[in-house]
Amino acid sequence: MQHTSAIHSAAQANDRLKTLQAQLGATPSEYTHPLDPLSATEISVASTLIKARHVGKRFQFRYVTLVEPPKTVMTAYLDDELAGRTPAGRPDRVAEALYSIFDHETGWSYKVYEAIVNLTNNQVVEETPLPEGVAEALSFKSMADAQAILVESKEFKDAVAKLGLPENVVVEIDPWMYGVDQPKFGPNRLSFLCYARHPSNNHPDGNLYAVPLPIIPIMDLQTMKVLSIDPAASGGTEDGFAYNTHPEKAIDHCIANEYVPELQANGLRKDLKPLQVVQPEGASFKITGRLVEWQKWRFRVGWNYREGMVINDVTYNGRRVFHRLSLSDMTVPYGDPRTPYHRKQAFDLGDIGAGISANNLALGCDCLGLIHYFPGALASYTGEGEVKGNAVCLHEQDMGIGWKHTNYRTNRAVLTRNRMLVVQQILTVANYEYIFAWQFDQAGAIHFETRATGILSTCPIDPGKVSEWGNVVSPGVLAQYHQHIFCLRIDPAVDGWKNSVVQEEAVSLPISKERNPFGNAFVTQKTVIKSSSYADAAPEKNRVFKIVNPAKLNPYSKNPVGYKLVPHTGQLLLADPGSVSAQRARFAQHHLWVTKHRDGDLWCGGKYTNQSFREDGGLQDMVERSENVENEDILVWHTFGMTHIPRVEDFPVMPVEVHTVSLKPADFFTQNPAIDVPASSQLVNQSVLYDERAAAVGKPASKCCS
Amino acid sequence: MQHTSAIHSAAQANDRLKTLQAQLGATPSEYTHPLDPLSATEISVASTLIKARHVGKRFQFRYVTLVEPPKTVMTAYLDDELAGRTPAGRPDRVAEALYSIFDHETGWSYKVYEAIVNLTNNQVVEETPLPEGVAEALSFKSMADAQAILVESKEFKDAVAKLGLPENVVVEIDPWMYGVDQPKFGPNRLSFLCYARHPSNNHPDGNLYAVPLPIIPIMDLQTMKVLSIDPAASGGTEDGFAYNTHPEKAIDHCIANEYVPELQANGLRKDLKPLQVVQPEGASFKITGRLVEWQKWRFRVGWNYREGMVINDVTYNGRRVFHRLSLSDMTVPYGDPRTPYHRKQAFDLGDIGAGISANNLALGCDCLGLIHYFPGALASYTGEGEVKGNAVCLHEQDMGIGWKHTNYRTNRAVLTRNRMLVVQQILTVANYEYIFAWQFDQAGAIHFETRATGILSTCPIDPGKVSEWGNVVSPGVLAQYHQHIFCLRIDPAVDGWKNSVVQEEAVSLPISKERNPFGNAFVTQKTVIKSSSYADAAPEKNRVFKIVNPAKLNPYSKNPVGYKLVPHTGQLLLADPGSVSAQRARFAQHHLWVTKHRDGDLWCGGKYTNQSFREDGGLQDMVERSENVENEDILVWHTFGMTHIPRVEDFPVMPVEVHTVSLKPADFFTQNPAIDVPASSQLVNQSVLYDERAAAVGKPASKCCS
Repeated sequence: MQHTSAIHSAAQANDRLKTLQAQLGATPSEYTHPLDPLSATEISVASTLIKARHVGKRFQFRYVTLVEPPKTVMTAYLDDELAGRTPAGRPDRVAEALYSIFDHETGWSYKVYEAIVNLTNNQVVEETPLPEGVAEALSFKSMADAQAILVESKEFKDAVAKLGLPENVVVEIDPWMYGVDQPKFGPNRLSFLCYARHPSNNHPDGNLYAVPLPIIPIMDLQTMKVLSIDPAASGGTEDGFAYNTHPEKAIDHCIANEYVPELQANGLRKDLKPLQVVQPEGASFKITGRLVEWQKWRFRVGWNYREGMVINDVTYNGRRVFHRLSLSDMTVPYGDPRTPYHRKQAFDLGDIGAGISANNLALGCDCLGLIHYFPGALASYTGEGEVKGNAVCLHEQDMGIGWKHTNYRTNRAVLTRNRMLVVQQILTVANYEYIFAWQFDQAGAIHFETRATGILSTCPIDPGKVSEWGNVVSPGVLAQYHQHIFCLRIDPAVDGWKNSVVQEEAVSLPISKERNPFGNAFVTQKTVIKSSSYADAAPEKNRVFKIVNPAKLNPYSKNPVGYKLVPHTGQLLLADPGSVSAQRARFAQHHLWVTKHRDGDLWCGGKYTNQSFREDGGLQDMVERSENVENEDILVWHTFGMTHIPRVEDFPVMPVEVHTVSLKPADFFTQNPAIDVPASSQLVNQSVLYDERAAAVGKPASKCCS
Repeated sequence: MQHTSAIHSAAQANDRLKTLQAQLGATPSEYTHPLDPLSATEISVASTLIKARHVGKRFQFRYVTLVEPPKTVMTAYLDDELAGRTPAGRPDRVAEALYSIFDHETGWSYKVYEAIVNLTNNQVVEETPLPEGVAEALSFKSMADAQAILVESKEFKDAVAKLGLPENVVVEIDPWMYGVDQPKFGPNRLSFLCYARHPSNNHPDGNLYAVPLPIIPIMDLQTMKVLSIDPAASGGTEDGFAYNTHPEKAIDHCIANEYVPELQANGLRKDLKPLQVVQPEGASFKITGRLVEWQKWRFRVGWNYREGMVINDVTYNGRRVFHRLSLSDMTVPYGDPRTPYHRKQAFDLGDIGAGISANNLALGCDCLGLIHYFPGALASYTGEGEVKGNAVCLHEQDMGIGWKHTNYRTNRAVLTRNRMLVVQQILTVANYEYIFAWQFDQAGAIHFETRATGILSTCPIDPGKVSEWGNVVSPGVLAQYHQHIFCLRIDPAVDGWKNSVVQEEAVSLPISKERNPFGNAFVTQKTVIKSSSYADAAPEKNRVFKIVNPAKLNPYSKNPVGYKLVPHTGQLLLADPGSVSAQRARFAQHHLWVTKHRDGDLWCGGKYTNQSFREDGGLQDMVERSENVENEDILVWHTFGMTHIPRVEDFPVMPVEVHTVSLKPADFFTQNPAIDVPASSQLVNQSVLYDERAAAVGKPASKCCS
């Protein structure tokens, strides 16, 4: 239980601060813009100031993050920048921190506090205990501490001994949020899903999820005591809710179902030849700190512990498009009603944090081509800032033909390729991976792509059985049905700061002599959303949502300039609306939400999701403020989901399941904005013709074409 | 009206045949497989045999195409091949032809015939006049002949003179199917949509669609006489169905809205640097004639005048997956009720043909990387076979991460990239382009990607007006609302020849003490489709359709092995179900159709779509045969659409609108089939780090990382 960097005296705090200030002063480029994330040094300053107020105490920091300046301050600042003026003032740098302070010099009990720290004048502005009735976010440190105690406990060793495992089996553990099933606040506990390395290989990177154990330990986080070792249901459909149906030798029926290359029993494919992306004249993008300029796009890449990457201040050819884009939160509820699985519901951003979970990306593995990485700084549990060097990657990619037309009269074809800019992060949340990418194209559109991969969260099932609650993906392995529901936060600035949302559908007209004599006619039906509300996808009506600037009309069509969101139509939350599961995630019940912007309106599921029993301060509450959202500073939120009925092919690691949501210009421009992209040509692209005969005799079959 | 290659005597026919037979004999590789498309020589043989029956007559061929052997013959043949046996027999090569024979030595009147020709024994097996009540498909030759007569006619010249066009304006014309609005067969006519080159540039590749003219000539195809020059409605919403509202100078309010690079007033982007795909060790695919082998996939690329590319005999790692995949047809109905627009409805495959419309692709322009092209042979109007050398392209592409998992305990990441094989064709149908691609990935899935691009079909609108029937995308240019509805024909062979289709949904359970005490539970609901029928998408129920082999169960899940189709959820046909428009395209009214296979069941909209007033012999008729489709030789058809409400950004050429439909293995395999793909590594991928400082001083900013 070591906590280094503790502060033991005011003098020590001052010395530390001086050292950090010198660092800040020495590297002014560390902070050049109000929307830049906190640097590691700034994080260290904040935590030092906090620790100085509690000299000698033991701390565990959970996060230290930027509090973005108020929007009214930022709009003025950004307007100055866009106009080429030096912004009038520089907003103070403010940080928010969440941390626990241990009650005593030894022991585990703690209290949680939140603090606001002004880094410009080195003041802790306020420090408050965590509000009543909410839990702090999870931390990897707490999970690790708890697990270390668990594995040494008698309760755990006894429970494992009863499972009839082979000699020397190594048990692996995934700590999990305890979850909630009562509509009231409960004590702060932790669950543990238990697995084993397959005894045939005992590999440290073996697929433990292929060997699930039928026990679920529970611990109390305040005392770090083992409360119980609960049985995990492992029966089939015929067993209903019965427990302890598993065989005496609990894992003998499980096989090694591995993903690491060296354990592939049949070897690897030998016939895949390299495919490289080469950019011989370098990148078309220009990066200056966190500022990105590419093909008329200009934006900043922000970052924080919870959302991970944030896209700020997006303009296209000098016109405002979006103020801020991010993934706000997500929920992954499971559909198995057998205790304790009914509580299995993760909120991966609110419970832990995307920035915290983000992979440190590796050149040439995660991204192909010419790559730039953005770092992100986090608070270690001691409060010191640490940099994740490759938290976000950026690169170009070719996405096929952008546009083409051949004039059949002359047979002249003109076409361009669709070059995209990708800004990407990858999260690992225990078993699962999520790859998120913002993609910008040359035709003025922005896309958010989600790829789900990684490993299914599994639970045990007795040999030979099947279950109505999931799919058996390997002997003894049940992959329960669940959902992945995401929510995008879109802060628009379509040609200006005040926008409206218009719902538009394509509607058949009834047959009539006057308007539709032959029955083929259809029109659009548009409805301006006036008051904060939610709506759903309706693909059978071609329902789309246009974020428009009612004060600016397209000179040709006379429609207000806008950006169109075609909602993702996937199934949303299946849990009964009255259930705690649904009440925790009211944002997950509708596809589209329009609210009036208020500073701090960041979290679709509320600020405190871990152990929440009800979404508080999330989208439903924002909507119920019943505010005007017409021609206003608004927020648009898009919830989209995928119900996951696992396939056997999703194991041992799932092939990516890809979903894309697009924001496309709709009468924002006066023509295809990519019309001036240079035409695709062989001179530039250097494609090569495959030569069948050369290939047949085993030579690399390439010949260059003029 | 030149028709060369006419046959004037039996002796001439025999000589010609001998020459062709010698060609066939000399190049045995031209026909190596029963599913290979007809070669140019075979086409010439067929037409020569036909012409020999009508010595001295003038012909106009429309198509000569392969009649695929009966399925029962092919399944035996392919089973032999798959088992490594020499197939017992070689089915006869049979061709079908459609052609007109002119009634007299001069003049235009003609009769249309269909013939079946056995190329193995050089016999015309049957020759019949086109059935009563149907029209032949359109041909570019007829359109060109008609247009040549039109532009010289007094009626046309007089009508143009009345439009007040500037001096020396060049009128351009798009011949169009006449269309149908009565529930009865009508005479065979042709429409013409008229445009002009913008007088400011008069460029042969100028965007004529920016200068629409308010006249629509009509001609009779049997007599090639101009029947009328109809007015095109050009009013705004306030004008209702009025005609002749256009100004005296009909096009003065139109601007030049160009796509060719040399006419870009503001020049082209100068900051796009090359991005190349390099495959230094060559392709991973192997092509032998029309056979493709790549990453455990094995299939043949078929081709014909109507579907264009066809994917035949798909196996994965020696297991059957699909017998035949193709786009069956599509319909593009417009929603403007003002005569004659109410008749505007194209069936681009049935009316003309995808193979006929396919671009001859250009290396380095259409496809990036290491490319193989497949040719396709068509009958010229004289009947001679002509080869389109690059009708279909094939190449690999990198589609990002395929799967990834990081074990947080060891921080070891294992990931692979998702390499895809693409088989692609591009159609130009007058104004529009469609890019279709079958994509195969390493995780056993097949995707069909559609990209719509090219130019909107426009009509005139008076200056300053807007219309409820479309969007004004350029001054004087109305882009009418319309739909693009496609239909895929899927002939499955999932692990064998007899399959079923199971509809599966994810369904919440009601709260109950026994089964769902906490309200989180959900299950799947499966319904086997027993009798030929149709169904719709229902994304709110997570409805998917699994094509399964009920005789083969997955050893782990115990589910029948299958392939899952997640239906595209876009809006389907908006026309009133009782309208002629809807009756012509009953296939376009539902998303999913399951029918029992019969030879010749190729055309979702029926065999004869041009001038059809009712879908005849299409999906609705197939379904109404009420046949068993459970554990049967079935066909699965997927209709998917996009309602096109044109944006100003869709002009002058539309940025691609991309839609993908996927067929994914569902318990077909016992694990992720891509688990043995070698891990992604920098050594192979050779990605390069972007160096911010180097870029800032203008050097190509790349540095290699170890």
